[in-house]
Amino acid sequence: MAKDMTLLWGSGSPPCWRIQIILEEKQLQGYNQKQFSFEKMEHKSQEVLDMNPRGQLPAFKCGKHILNESYAACFFLENQYKSQGTKLIPDSPDVQALMYQRMFEAFTLVEKMVGFMYYNFFVPEGERHDSAIQRKREDLTTELKLWEGYLKKTDSFLAGKEYTLADVLVFPFIAYMFHYGLCSERYPALTKYYNTLKERPSIKATWPPYWHKLIEQDTLKTV
Amino acid sequence: MAKDMTLLWGSGSPPCWRIQIILEEKQLQGYNQKQFSFEKMEHKSQEVLDMNPRGQLPAFKCGKHILNESYAACFFLENQYKSQGTKLIPDSPDVQALMYQRMFEAFTLVEKMVGFMYYNFFVPEGERHDSAIQRKREDLTTELKLWEGYLKKTDSFLAGKEYTLADVLVFPFIAYMFHYGLCSERYPALTKYYNTLKERPSIKATWPPYWHKLIEQDTLKTV
Repeated sequence: MAKDMTLLWGSGSPPCWRIQIILEEKQLQGYNQKQFSFEKMEHKSQEVLDMNPRGQLPAFKCGKHILNESYAACFFLENQYKSQGTKLIPDSPDVQALMYQRMFEAFTLVEKMVGFMYYNFFVPEGERHDSAIQRKREDLTTELKLWEGYLKKTDSFLAGKEYTLADVLVFPFIAYMFHYGLCSERYPALTKYYNTLKERPSIKATWPPYWHKLIEQDTLKTV
Repeated sequence: MAKDMTLLWGSGSPPCWRIQIILEEKQLQGYNQKQFSFEKMEHKSQEVLDMNPRGQLPAFKCGKHILNESYAACFFLENQYKSQGTKLIPDSPDVQALMYQRMFEAFTLVEKMVGFMYYNFFVPEGERHDSAIQRKREDLTTELKLWEGYLKKTDSFLAGKEYTLADVLVFPFIAYMFHYGLCSERYPALTKYYNTLKERPSIKATWPPYWHKLIEQDTLKTV
């Protein structure tokens, strides 16, 4: 069945990485894949647009189904391959409740991160204000402190002692932030989570190729 | 079991409304509830903060589980009460794929809507630019045209001929936009969807109380 799947992806994109991780976890290796360069604007190429009219990566096809939203792809794959590979939605209502709550709170984390990191990308030069950057930095710090508290409490994965769909969906963004200079000393629980999960086989197998070259990034060092 | 649930909500808030709708669909009436006023800033009151430290509505408790993210609450309730009331995640992979894709694309729709409608609320006076408002209006128009196309194609619900979890999650925002003046002539498929769904019992039973008084709103008339 994996031969019937196609993933168009870009290196270092957390949404793309989510799908790569879940395909490993569900033992769906051997899918068709092609890497595109964001730098060369290849996500706006006809090949991507044919599958994802928004011109964004990932673009993912599973049989005849198009699932370009990474959350949608992950939910679909977990539902279609429930008993194959890692069971990512546990039966326990306790774990489920926390798993769902955290995976959807992550939209706020991502919004705050993007708002700060990509301010200059999304806001045209004539509309930029230092006060806005400062406010966005503070918003991200406040948000990160919440997540630091969550992981301090569970002391392992996002929904407790089990690796769940919440980790598949949220970890790539945590890793992204560390790649861009998030301070280990200020966020020890997030750091522990990051260090533990980066050794997980599904994550090691799909680590963003560009990130193997260690380049010092300090975009997030002040957060 | 519904007696073991508590919903703190505010009138006219689409995320609150999602939970009210799914509780009707899953025949979980009789839950505890309390309405708070956004105008009076009651969402920052201690009673809300005790359940939702973000100081946001909804705040939802199901037994001992806190599920303040509306998507999380809806997924949890559908999973815990699969065979009670309306089955909202159909078995068909075709329907499931489209349902997941649309419900997660909706985050972009909401982001564009909020970016335009609440520009003055979120951006301090000294940082506002007419060029930004203009761009955000165009972004929302582009986004709405996509959704108009989606509904034109299915000609009924978001994932086809069945009412699914995607409709529970997305309809409240579509209704919200019509309440704030979205033009029926420019979006006939969205209008048909709105007019059909507003007669659905779960939606009629939970219609935002403030909206019963018809007040002319034109915030979105130019979109």
